[in-house]
Amino acid sequence: MLGEATAPGKMILFGEHSVVYRGPAVVLAIDRRAKVIAGKRDDEKVYIDADNLGFSGYFEGDEYHAVRGKAWRGRNLAALNMSTRKTMERLDVESGVNLKVRSMIPIAVGLGSSAAVNVATVGAVQRLFDGDLSKEEISNIAFEGETIIHGKPSGVDNNVSTFGGVMSYERGKGFNHHQIEGSIPFIIGNTRKKRSTKKMVETVAVLRERNPALMDNVIDVMGSIASEGLDALLKKDLKRLGDLMNINHGLLSSIGVSTMKLETLCHTARANGALGAKLTGAGGGGCMIALAEETELAEVERAIRRRKSDSYRVSLTDRGVESRRIEEKNADS
Amino acid sequence: MLGEATAPGKMILFGEHSVVYRGPAVVLAIDRRAKVIAGKRDDEKVYIDADNLGFSGYFEGDEYHAVRGKAWRGRNLAALNMSTRKTMERLDVESGVNLKVRSMIPIAVGLGSSAAVNVATVGAVQRLFDGDLSKEEISNIAFEGETIIHGKPSGVDNNVSTFGGVMSYERGKGFNHHQIEGSIPFIIGNTRKKRSTKKMVETVAVLRERNPALMDNVIDVMGSIASEGLDALLKKDLKRLGDLMNINHGLLSSIGVSTMKLETLCHTARANGALGAKLTGAGGGGCMIALAEETELAEVERAIRRRKSDSYRVSLTDRGVESRRIEEKNADS
Repeated sequence: MLGEATAPGKMILFGEHSVVYRGPAVVLAIDRRAKVIAGKRDDEKVYIDADNLGFSGYFEGDEYHAVRGKAWRGRNLAALNMSTRKTMERLDVESGVNLKVRSMIPIAVGLGSSAAVNVATVGAVQRLFDGDLSKEEISNIAFEGETIIHGKPSGVDNNVSTFGGVMSYERGKGFNHHQIEGSIPFIIGNTRKKRSTKKMVETVAVLRERNPALMDNVIDVMGSIASEGLDALLKKDLKRLGDLMNINHGLLSSIGVSTMKLETLCHTARANGALGAKLTGAGGGGCMIALAEETELAEVERAIRRRKSDSYRVSLTDRGVESRRIEEKNADS
Repeated sequence: MLGEATAPGKMILFGEHSVVYRGPAVVLAIDRRAKVIAGKRDDEKVYIDADNLGFSGYFEGDEYHAVRGKAWRGRNLAALNMSTRKTMERLDVESGVNLKVRSMIPIAVGLGSSAAVNVATVGAVQRLFDGDLSKEEISNIAFEGETIIHGKPSGVDNNVSTFGGVMSYERGKGFNHHQIEGSIPFIIGNTRKKRSTKKMVETVAVLRERNPALMDNVIDVMGSIASEGLDALLKKDLKRLGDLMNINHGLLSSIGVSTMKLETLCHTARANGALGAKLTGAGGGGCMIALAEETELAEVERAIRRRKSDSYRVSLTDRGVESRRIEEKNADS
């Protein structure tokens, strides 16, 4: 038998950057998922096949041995090794594990790919050993694993990937999950430019050091937008949501995290029927998101593609991590 | 004998749009000038030769007769007719007048071309009739003339064009002129897209009606930037000035007056060494301005040109309206 789990990616709707200082961030689980299949090994290695990401290799203890791809890729996989071992520790088993990782979430563009793979890993490994961990426990173990790579992650990504749905987060006040009926579709435009969250957060900090009062005023407005935006989202007031996305994007641009390409995609989306468009996540590359009425979605999607960028429809999903035991022969289903 | 006068264009450094609601705007006279040469006629017509703008014609009373270009161009020229007649009225003379208009200021992109031509017209006509009007009087007559075209102009453009230098303006508090030693060069990037100030002001008003509290917060921050920006300008603190321009541009984008082309030019300028870049004026087209160290100016200028836009260096100028009497034979000098 094998353990299989899937977990969703996420997008930040409001509050990126401002959440570092104050006010909430609003984050949605999206219907692009990562899948991990876990199987037992006779040795004590954790072997990770991440072929569709372009690399695979195994860990003996903490040490990475590349099989395909460069050795430094081990950095990306270290979280999975750690999460796997923590899960086994929690279930009081000792074993080697094979992990087969498949993800439909674009990597390194702010859509929560790392956390989703990590959450799915915990989900799959616990299933493999007949565990029945609560979502709370899965999220916590994944968080520990992620800490290895990201140093001091906020916990947002593993949390929303585990539980799905709409989540708001405020520093020092933790997470709130919100109910929303039905779904809301968005268009994601991917600049294909990888970005570093850490670097962008530093960019903002430097500008804020030089202009503390002004920047804090802008950050305050962003916090208000996140609060109002959560309200508009839960009421499905798309027109207002669009306005707030547009205003928020301008403020993100004012604190220095937008790029020419992100501007091009946002203006393209608006000119082709979007009610609102903004960068999502750290900025400096990565993705933008657009909101549009159902009838306009296809045109917005096409317009972004004409700008030589990836574009896809995503919907808010309630489905968090899901795991099951499967027969060996079904492993590629 | 003829009367000749020149007057400078202007650029808004800070406070466009926010000045409509509260806080100051900071406006600079720039070293691109309009020139008007006025000569007497035997009839009572005001004949306007604006060949380098593509049209000319004459007024009999208020009625425009096109000689070159479409009849509706009379709308643009009506202010000059009115200012000419008001100037003669003030000097207690009756005559026809020939006006030869030449301008180095791009039209309809927010650089104060209309006001400069109008101020130069008053300056030239009063010289023609041996007047010696104060700048105050010239500005006031030009303002009356402009009211014909613009309905309810702020008075900013005729004021800064008449007096030159740095001016701050706040609704209900009038104008303040500021001394600055030496000059500061800027790069102007012209999208070549004409825009309507009225339309853009309405766009902001509509968005504000839907989101009053948020928009007022953003407008407040823009007001603070204008105050801080005036201080940074007078201290010639270029680095801080650049930061403030960048932040201000993002806020203008957040209230919906930026365009893809303006974003492209601002990001291009910053990527090529500018300390700051922002749209100037109403937005929705028109111009952006960039600030850079002397050594970087040429590269910023070239980079904007590579984006298929006009680009030119302009400097803050102390020279307001200047007039003199000239011999007929020097009229083309």
